[in-house]
Amino acid sequence: MPDTSPPDSVGLVSPTLIQFDEPLDLACGRTLPGYELMVETYGELNRDASNAILICHALSGHHHAAGYHSGDDAEKPGWWDLYIGPGKPIDSSRFFIVSLNNIGGCHGSTGPKSINPETGEPWGPTFPPLRARDWVNTQARLADHFGIAQWAVVIGGSLGGMQAMRWALEYPSRLRHCIVIASAMKLTAQNIAFNEIARRAITEDPDFHGGNYLMEDTVPRNGLALARMIGHVTYLSDELMGSRFGRELRSGTFQRGLDTPIEFQVESYLRHQGDKFSNDFDANTYILMTKVLDYFDLAREYGDDPVAAFKHAECKFLVISFSSDWRFSPERSREIVDALVAAKKDVSYADIQSSQGHDAFLLPNERYQKLLKAYLAAVATDAEQREEAS
Amino acid sequence: MPDTSPPDSVGLVSPTLIQFDEPLDLACGRTLPGYELMVETYGELNRDASNAILICHALSGHHHAAGYHSGDDAEKPGWWDLYIGPGKPIDSSRFFIVSLNNIGGCHGSTGPKSINPETGEPWGPTFPPLRARDWVNTQARLADHFGIAQWAVVIGGSLGGMQAMRWALEYPSRLRHCIVIASAMKLTAQNIAFNEIARRAITEDPDFHGGNYLMEDTVPRNGLALARMIGHVTYLSDELMGSRFGRELRSGTFQRGLDTPIEFQVESYLRHQGDKFSNDFDANTYILMTKVLDYFDLAREYGDDPVAAFKHAECKFLVISFSSDWRFSPERSREIVDALVAAKKDVSYADIQSSQGHDAFLLPNERYQKLLKAYLAAVATDAEQREEAS
Repeated sequence: MPDTSPPDSVGLVSPTLIQFDEPLDLACGRTLPGYELMVETYGELNRDASNAILICHALSGHHHAAGYHSGDDAEKPGWWDLYIGPGKPIDSSRFFIVSLNNIGGCHGSTGPKSINPETGEPWGPTFPPLRARDWVNTQARLADHFGIAQWAVVIGGSLGGMQAMRWALEYPSRLRHCIVIASAMKLTAQNIAFNEIARRAITEDPDFHGGNYLMEDTVPRNGLALARMIGHVTYLSDELMGSRFGRELRSGTFQRGLDTPIEFQVESYLRHQGDKFSNDFDANTYILMTKVLDYFDLAREYGDDPVAAFKHAECKFLVISFSSDWRFSPERSREIVDALVAAKKDVSYADIQSSQGHDAFLLPNERYQKLLKAYLAAVATDAEQREEAS
Repeated sequence: MPDTSPPDSVGLVSPTLIQFDEPLDLACGRTLPGYELMVETYGELNRDASNAILICHALSGHHHAAGYHSGDDAEKPGWWDLYIGPGKPIDSSRFFIVSLNNIGGCHGSTGPKSINPETGEPWGPTFPPLRARDWVNTQARLADHFGIAQWAVVIGGSLGGMQAMRWALEYPSRLRHCIVIASAMKLTAQNIAFNEIARRAITEDPDFHGGNYLMEDTVPRNGLALARMIGHVTYLSDELMGSRFGRELRSGTFQRGLDTPIEFQVESYLRHQGDKFSNDFDANTYILMTKVLDYFDLAREYGDDPVAAFKHAECKFLVISFSSDWRFSPERSREIVDALVAAKKDVSYADIQSSQGHDAFLLPNERYQKLLKAYLAAVATDAEQREEAS
């Protein structure tokens, strides 16, 4: 099949399922007997493995971050294709880029939809609860698998940024740069509340069956759609929704004498988003991943002192926030930066002007693109010099 | 029974059900054959009926705005008791205060729970859709009932503020002051989106039965609880939730080795609020009232020009917003003020510093209380002078 993707795309890619047989001790105290990770890579690892970048995905993300799987005209590229590819900020012509679906996920890696070897049935709601550190541990083994002793960069947005920060504390010598985008050291009560409402929408859908919906041959479609709608509204800014939808009605305007159901465009858009998501995503994974978000607390085991926590880090940091992001507001990023400065770490920070809310980290933005590109170009040059010197 | 309420309370009050037999033509083109309004009044109407204040309630409000019904120790006072009573900003020793449950409501006035005289069964989902102007028309007839040719003040917060503004345009000679608190000339797309999600939570509850749940002897409790939880989070500020709940866990902290369900305090608080609401409120009313909010558009029939709309007003305006209200933000109030200024109307405006979000209009706040009190004291003095002169 000819590759018809644009020249700055990584083109056609295929995920690989990698098996890890060594048991994994989890933060919750339980042990996963073994696990599989669904992984994509873009670009080539250099001779001394100094040019590797790890992509950590957010709540609804997965391994397919760039390029195309089929090359069909209608196919959408990976979720961060705007930023990953030859000549793009995360430049696949200079870096070896590793992207995985985290365990607990629903896109091929071991998760609630997988078979529990001890019972022969899907894990479902019995899949162990996870913490970001569990993911970081599996990602460290993935690095071992590729022979990567040290990542040039660990990067992620939102929940992905939390993993990147956890990397800097758990494996300080194994990354040179940590890029934290639209993230936080812990969620606010408001953020936890939105997640709880989304979870309750799922768990109270009669098709949820206490999480055992697969055994009942159904899925809690309505609950998942509602959860996604809540997420979607809160990940966009008021301003963006206003400019995109205004108060446009989908079918004519309300008039005296007209007593039929009419909708605002924003309503049908949201319903569409919700319904689409409910076909693609696993409800137990959604619950599990929002719990990882809620319980993430960077400094908890460092006496609730983020400065003490970040003292363990050895890498350089780039922190990015977006002005209209109200779920992971610039204030949360500035808290990270303040703690890093107080811990005497090398940190750069940019608050990017944007009307696109939390989702801005996935969307086109010239200043954001230029910033990432300039920062990562310097990292790539450094990696190339290391390779030459080795 | 002795009245044990504090001296600044209106004390024990009893609502009255008032019957209106004249058919009411609605904005939707249908006609309500007649209707009942559940009404409370506080204070005494003066000789020339110049001291009357109309209270317009918000989404989940009703007629019981002040005082107590039973005098039981555990009883909570009316929803705006902090602001209504002898010596309070809406001073029942100087004003005659009228508070009603709007039609479409579920607290005694004609609404979806009432019997449709044509079928002998509850209206349920067949109750006509309403617009704010329909409420204003019923309130005008209520004024006639009391012999009030002109309100001294029409006042309301949120959806209540929308009614107050509609009064100023529909019956310009029948009010002297319009007080619009935490409101907007129309909702933003984000606000409509939150309402749509709340409605969908209700309509997709299997106990909703297309709105005919009363016939099935059930109520969509889970859906209503979810809708309330969404509303509650969005009516509070991030800051207030943070200071009230932080990230406190309800039962111990998460530790390695502990794999039991634990909750954040904010989760159990929200669940409690949601469950309580689902016992007290009617789902069809919730849907109907959020639709009134969504479709409210002050200037639509004035060529979408709020200045042209407000040119019809004859009263004075006081507009109040709260700094941390992100669902009816100060920007929305400033749009009202700008249009009033451009229409050459007499308008005062205050943005009140508050960390309490949209709910601030119901809560204690010294500056807000002082402002309302000073403004209304001048209105009361004017009313007393009118009475003397009459």
